[in-house]
Amino acid sequence: MLVTNNAARGPETGRNLDPWYSSYADRTKGLAASEVRALFAVASRPEVVSLAGGSPFVKALPEELIDSAFRSMMREHGPEALQYGGGQGIPQIREQILDIMALEGITDASADDIVTTTGSQHGLDIVSKLFLNPGDVVLAESPSYVGAIGTFRAYEADTVHVEMDEHGLIPSALEETLHRLRSECRVVKFLYTIPNFNNPAGSMMTAERRHEILEVCRREHLLIVEDNPYGLLYYDEQPPHAIRSLDSENVVYLGSFSKILSPGVRVGYVLAPHAIREKMILAVESSILSPSTFNQWLVNEYLKQADWKAQVAAYRDIYRERRDALDAALREHFPQFVWEKPNGGFFIWLQLPEQLDAKQMLPRAVKELVAYTPGTAFYADGRGQHAMRLAFCTETPERLATGVRRLATVINGELDLLETFGGLPMRSRPESGVIMPPPDIN
Amino acid sequence: MLVTNNAARGPETGRNLDPWYSSYADRTKGLAASEVRALFAVASRPEVVSLAGGSPFVKALPEELIDSAFRSMMREHGPEALQYGGGQGIPQIREQILDIMALEGITDASADDIVTTTGSQHGLDIVSKLFLNPGDVVLAESPSYVGAIGTFRAYEADTVHVEMDEHGLIPSALEETLHRLRSECRVVKFLYTIPNFNNPAGSMMTAERRHEILEVCRREHLLIVEDNPYGLLYYDEQPPHAIRSLDSENVVYLGSFSKILSPGVRVGYVLAPHAIREKMILAVESSILSPSTFNQWLVNEYLKQADWKAQVAAYRDIYRERRDALDAALREHFPQFVWEKPNGGFFIWLQLPEQLDAKQMLPRAVKELVAYTPGTAFYADGRGQHAMRLAFCTETPERLATGVRRLATVINGELDLLETFGGLPMRSRPESGVIMPPPDIN
Repeated sequence: MLVTNNAARGPETGRNLDPWYSSYADRTKGLAASEVRALFAVASRPEVVSLAGGSPFVKALPEELIDSAFRSMMREHGPEALQYGGGQGIPQIREQILDIMALEGITDASADDIVTTTGSQHGLDIVSKLFLNPGDVVLAESPSYVGAIGTFRAYEADTVHVEMDEHGLIPSALEETLHRLRSECRVVKFLYTIPNFNNPAGSMMTAERRHEILEVCRREHLLIVEDNPYGLLYYDEQPPHAIRSLDSENVVYLGSFSKILSPGVRVGYVLAPHAIREKMILAVESSILSPSTFNQWLVNEYLKQADWKAQVAAYRDIYRERRDALDAALREHFPQFVWEKPNGGFFIWLQLPEQLDAKQMLPRAVKELVAYTPGTAFYADGRGQHAMRLAFCTETPERLATGVRRLATVINGELDLLETFGGLPMRSRPESGVIMPPPDIN
Repeated sequence: MLVTNNAARGPETGRNLDPWYSSYADRTKGLAASEVRALFAVASRPEVVSLAGGSPFVKALPEELIDSAFRSMMREHGPEALQYGGGQGIPQIREQILDIMALEGITDASADDIVTTTGSQHGLDIVSKLFLNPGDVVLAESPSYVGAIGTFRAYEADTVHVEMDEHGLIPSALEETLHRLRSECRVVKFLYTIPNFNNPAGSMMTAERRHEILEVCRREHLLIVEDNPYGLLYYDEQPPHAIRSLDSENVVYLGSFSKILSPGVRVGYVLAPHAIREKMILAVESSILSPSTFNQWLVNEYLKQADWKAQVAAYRDIYRERRDALDAALREHFPQFVWEKPNGGFFIWLQLPEQLDAKQMLPRAVKELVAYTPGTAFYADGRGQHAMRLAFCTETPERLATGVRRLATVINGELDLLETFGGLPMRSRPESGVIMPPPDIN
């Protein structure tokens, strides 16, 4: 039912069919359709080899482990699991999270300083809510996680990327970027970093760099938000201890069960300095009252009953094989391209020749039944055109090989065309008949 | 690790031990410790009769219904349930939600316009995120839900209460309040209403009032956010159809499984006009990526397999008995006090004599092993001192009677004192030896 005559609607209304167009908060301007959204849609079609999404291989989790956790939960804690809980999360799971974090070198934490969340993204959202005013700046790796950039944008903050190399963030680049921004009177609120197997770059920050980055941040009084969903999923050597293990006051640490158990249960956690943690609990309550007690108890029973470390080791074996398969297929088909074979995580970041535009090329790839994520998703500033993120977590080694072969058809076809037409980048609209990906990968 | 010499920290730092004190976003000023939080703590001590929290009686849910939903979910949809899902929620549960909403008279909705959320509070949070700029106004009943007031405050918006009577919100009062605020150049973004069994007042908006309130809102181009967690929990007569059943463009409708199934699974939903829904999905993704697929599948299988309408009827019988028990106990002990016996929901709103202050009296009540929620929690403007919310959802009829008897001891003691000392309200600090409630009920 449209109201057709009301001054309160403002002048914009005529341009839009949405009667509430003039009512939205300013922050909705930062809510652009994220590429994460489209990934789900593309990846779900079975004929497409999905190198796009970051969905873990949950079929590798023996169902009896979940069954048995469920039965034990219902037997011992049924009514509690079905009831509301506190905003901080149930104490039992927070105690067990201490054991998980100890594997990352974090041994001085207290369960009191942990807040459980609806997945790690919720932790990111809450940290953003607590710290980001419109116009503030977050520093991040270059490239960085698409979902984090989106969340910062939803709080009307800008992400500014800091250069990294194969050892991780470059401390002098961090310092220079920070000084430059401050000299421009920008307010920089925190450094967002994924030291272990950066999404999408796959790179790992060295121990030395962790110390150096921390030193810069301490000196400059810059909070570090350390996001560590992949730390236990290393395939060659164990990564250095978390930055949080070096400092309890300068770091907010985000962890997740999505990659070592299941993303469907949406259980993540934040370890924060005491004063921040207090505010986090209030922010969690204000956003969802309490994280799901049902899922917290389920994960708690899983951790208690299952040999979860063995399960993580099993995941490592599966993903190592897949990483190797993707790496080998890339070496076979693209010997001239540049990438780093990652020591862990889910992704290979493939650098393309300058004349190829990964976003532009995506419709052709989907037509060839292979999907990837264009590099631009991982930059707030339009960079990344000549790169793509290839996920090896979702598909089998055989399907990974098939996917790369299809990708080679697309890329070689594109390169042939470019050669024929004198090396000009292809920027034309896709021809009719091309299967278009969902509108928001574009 | 405290940094002791850094200009960027600002002048406030000396006043605070939190090294990040000067870094917080402006909106954190609105994140006050909510009384909801303390309710969990108080209610969890078994010796205390809790008339405070709004926890449903989940023990009335036969465990085999959850067991069987779980088994069917794992059998049919295991890997999907453990995996990420889309930001809008799984299509299957959205289809079934149509059947639930049909019971409230909503028959023109499409599953496409539903977004599932991490409980209904998450829906409130997302609506607030989409509409509220700092300084905006939300209109709400008088009194209104503490969690909603808190969420609006977290977005730096002000809640202004509109008078209500036994038929619900008063349309002329809504119009006058709106005109007054607009004449003061305040931007009013929406009306937040709980037409069925308002939390805390227990009152039900009549059918006529629903039409009138909608007419005012249409005429004034004011969005309605209709929160309906209790609509199916009526004890005498079925309430009128939802406001949303009368208008699909002017209403955002919030529903929840917390009261008819389990709050622990945190599954709620929003039915929104098309353009708003699109933005909601983006806001959900930005805050949590996707609601728990595990819990959505579980609820989906429950709805498919269990006779959930019979279960709702069973809840009605249980809560009706409890409402009657609380009402009878109040009639026995407080024949001179004023309250309305509610037709549904979880609460009785007890008006106290002017000389009694419910918040002031709470420590004595907790000492006597009975807890309630002081009326001030449900007002953004300090009103409600002479009222308390009594929940009949959590305790058995026997415990409810015990609770009211204990409450009578406290109230009569207080009234005796007042009489002895000439009717002056007691405002002194509690004596030492009084068991204090958690610091945030104060």
